[in-house]
Amino acid sequence: MNTVTSYSNISANDLSQFANLVFKYMGCSDADAVLATDVLIKADLRGIDSHGVARLSGYVRLWQKGRINTKPNVSIVRQTASTASLDADAGLGLVVAPRAMELAIDKSRNCGSGWIAVGNSNHFGIAAYHAMKAIEQDMIGFASTNASPLVAPTFSKEKMLGTNPVCYAIPAGKFDPVIIDLATSAAANGKLEIAQRQNKPIPKGWVQTIDGKETTDPNGLKHGGSLLPLGSNREMGSHKGFGLGAMVDIFSGVLSGANFGPWVPPFVNFLDVLPNLPGKGLGHFLGAMQVDGFTDVQVFKQNMDIWIERFKGAEPINANQPVIIPGEPEAAFYKLRQKKGIPLIDAVVNDLKQLAETCNLEHPF
Amino acid sequence: MNTVTSYSNISANDLSQFANLVFKYMGCSDADAVLATDVLIKADLRGIDSHGVARLSGYVRLWQKGRINTKPNVSIVRQTASTASLDADAGLGLVVAPRAMELAIDKSRNCGSGWIAVGNSNHFGIAAYHAMKAIEQDMIGFASTNASPLVAPTFSKEKMLGTNPVCYAIPAGKFDPVIIDLATSAAANGKLEIAQRQNKPIPKGWVQTIDGKETTDPNGLKHGGSLLPLGSNREMGSHKGFGLGAMVDIFSGVLSGANFGPWVPPFVNFLDVLPNLPGKGLGHFLGAMQVDGFTDVQVFKQNMDIWIERFKGAEPINANQPVIIPGEPEAAFYKLRQKKGIPLIDAVVNDLKQLAETCNLEHPF
Repeated sequence: MNTVTSYSNISANDLSQFANLVFKYMGCSDADAVLATDVLIKADLRGIDSHGVARLSGYVRLWQKGRINTKPNVSIVRQTASTASLDADAGLGLVVAPRAMELAIDKSRNCGSGWIAVGNSNHFGIAAYHAMKAIEQDMIGFASTNASPLVAPTFSKEKMLGTNPVCYAIPAGKFDPVIIDLATSAAANGKLEIAQRQNKPIPKGWVQTIDGKETTDPNGLKHGGSLLPLGSNREMGSHKGFGLGAMVDIFSGVLSGANFGPWVPPFVNFLDVLPNLPGKGLGHFLGAMQVDGFTDVQVFKQNMDIWIERFKGAEPINANQPVIIPGEPEAAFYKLRQKKGIPLIDAVVNDLKQLAETCNLEHPF
Repeated sequence: MNTVTSYSNISANDLSQFANLVFKYMGCSDADAVLATDVLIKADLRGIDSHGVARLSGYVRLWQKGRINTKPNVSIVRQTASTASLDADAGLGLVVAPRAMELAIDKSRNCGSGWIAVGNSNHFGIAAYHAMKAIEQDMIGFASTNASPLVAPTFSKEKMLGTNPVCYAIPAGKFDPVIIDLATSAAANGKLEIAQRQNKPIPKGWVQTIDGKETTDPNGLKHGGSLLPLGSNREMGSHKGFGLGAMVDIFSGVLSGANFGPWVPPFVNFLDVLPNLPGKGLGHFLGAMQVDGFTDVQVFKQNMDIWIERFKGAEPINANQPVIIPGEPEAAFYKLRQKKGIPLIDAVVNDLKQLAETCNLEHPF
């Protein structure tokens, strides 16, 4: 039984105006509302629908529950010339992470690289938004975050890690930059949600049941199961996906003084935060490195163009499907959606209409 | 038809003495021979048999072919307080990478972190050896390298990337450090070699045929096929493994002025280096970050112990198989093999005996 999903196209501009008012309704300053809105809308423009305005009401509910501080006093806990840790004072990750990235870029400008661990934070949107800030300065950007526990380590049936994404953003010359942006789980939650709406079986290797068995049930996670690490099972290398998720958790959580592993606070407001937490909020790890600190920027960009051209031209298995350079699909979405608007499914439109009512706001839907 | 593999146990000490003489035979200085030997023997002790003395004759053949310079003049091409690029002058990666790691650690001591791109180098052994050097200084270590092209990107049948490993080494308190060391391909070459020796079919998802089709043939790679990226196929996330391998290639190759992608020179001497190379030799990317640059070292170690204990205790699918912390198996091998010696299969023993003859050396086999 597949259900048909219908869409409304809303312009990025209209969506921005609405999101901006919602963030102000939550008490964000003008500047913070602009920044938080930009992170969400860029996600929608890049085609990462699960991390755009579809999440807006989730942030509002967390704020209503007192878990988000919209007037945070972000402080530097510790720093060296090339590193720092920040306490985000329970602020919106959407706002705190870009500010942390600015600090990383400043440090990189001064001493070649900058690495910032952010603790006591909340969900920061898409990793690519933050990492890509470095590109504008001819730097390589890095962004990662830990997140609500949904992923079971190899050999376990317990949800211990988030989908813990990493993004590497690398400038190029005539081509679009290479944006390597991935959840360290086999499938991101957004892909599950699509299968759930369509009531379609999911591929084996995305989810296991509550007993740790393979399943193709798109609702397997809701029935107590867990997401699997990249690699899916031991034979295919799920211990590697687990290792990468662990790295993100340790860098984002343990280094920053945030929570880690199963203690990371859930994004959804209907799940309670666990007692006896080892840290505060959740954490991010962000970085920037000057290309110029290693090689001539123009030479680097020329070689990146050679790299991209050679990989695009790698012999395809099917002539109709060439190799996709990391970041290419998102750049294509971005160009298209800037012109044609952002397609929102009915469930999201209804959610936003309800949100407009809650906040007593005019809306474009 | 499974063939029985028989082993000889050789002490780490005897093996070291032999390897040391071989490196001196190649023209290495006393200090370089000690260092190169240490890298190889640590691989054997940690159970990474494919990267230990089994490779010794491979290094000799590359040197005989004039591709390794055992008296390199390693130079700093460019640097900032926290970054540098080195030209390894075609030296042994086994020797150059530890020296680059020393520079990363020095920079990290001075300004919080240090990141070194090494170009014009050769195979550097196991990534973990280099990353783990940082742990001794209460730093987090990173090591990666590009390598001979064996892995096809998603949608391609052409070998474009090496197995491009990454290692993150993270200090802990009462527990062994967490060592996240992985090839960005679904299976490392060493695992294929074991299946080849036993003439056993390999799991689907490790290798594709020359036409880009799934295969369980352990000799699929020898028959013109390619290794698959971590994730194995598009549905399971092979684009993520490809993205990670690409990151390693760009950081190690493009940033350092080394070759990248399909131009990385092959490790085996019977394959020729391609014409019109975009760079020199192959490349590594190494780094170190002071824990102290983010948080108190003792607090960090205590929290790492909590992290490790909690993940070890994650509810297992089978009571007999608890979660394995990254680095645990290698640490267990290390303790065992230090006591009991290193088990070498007959093929390796014969190879080493022949090498002893070539170099006119006494041997312990």
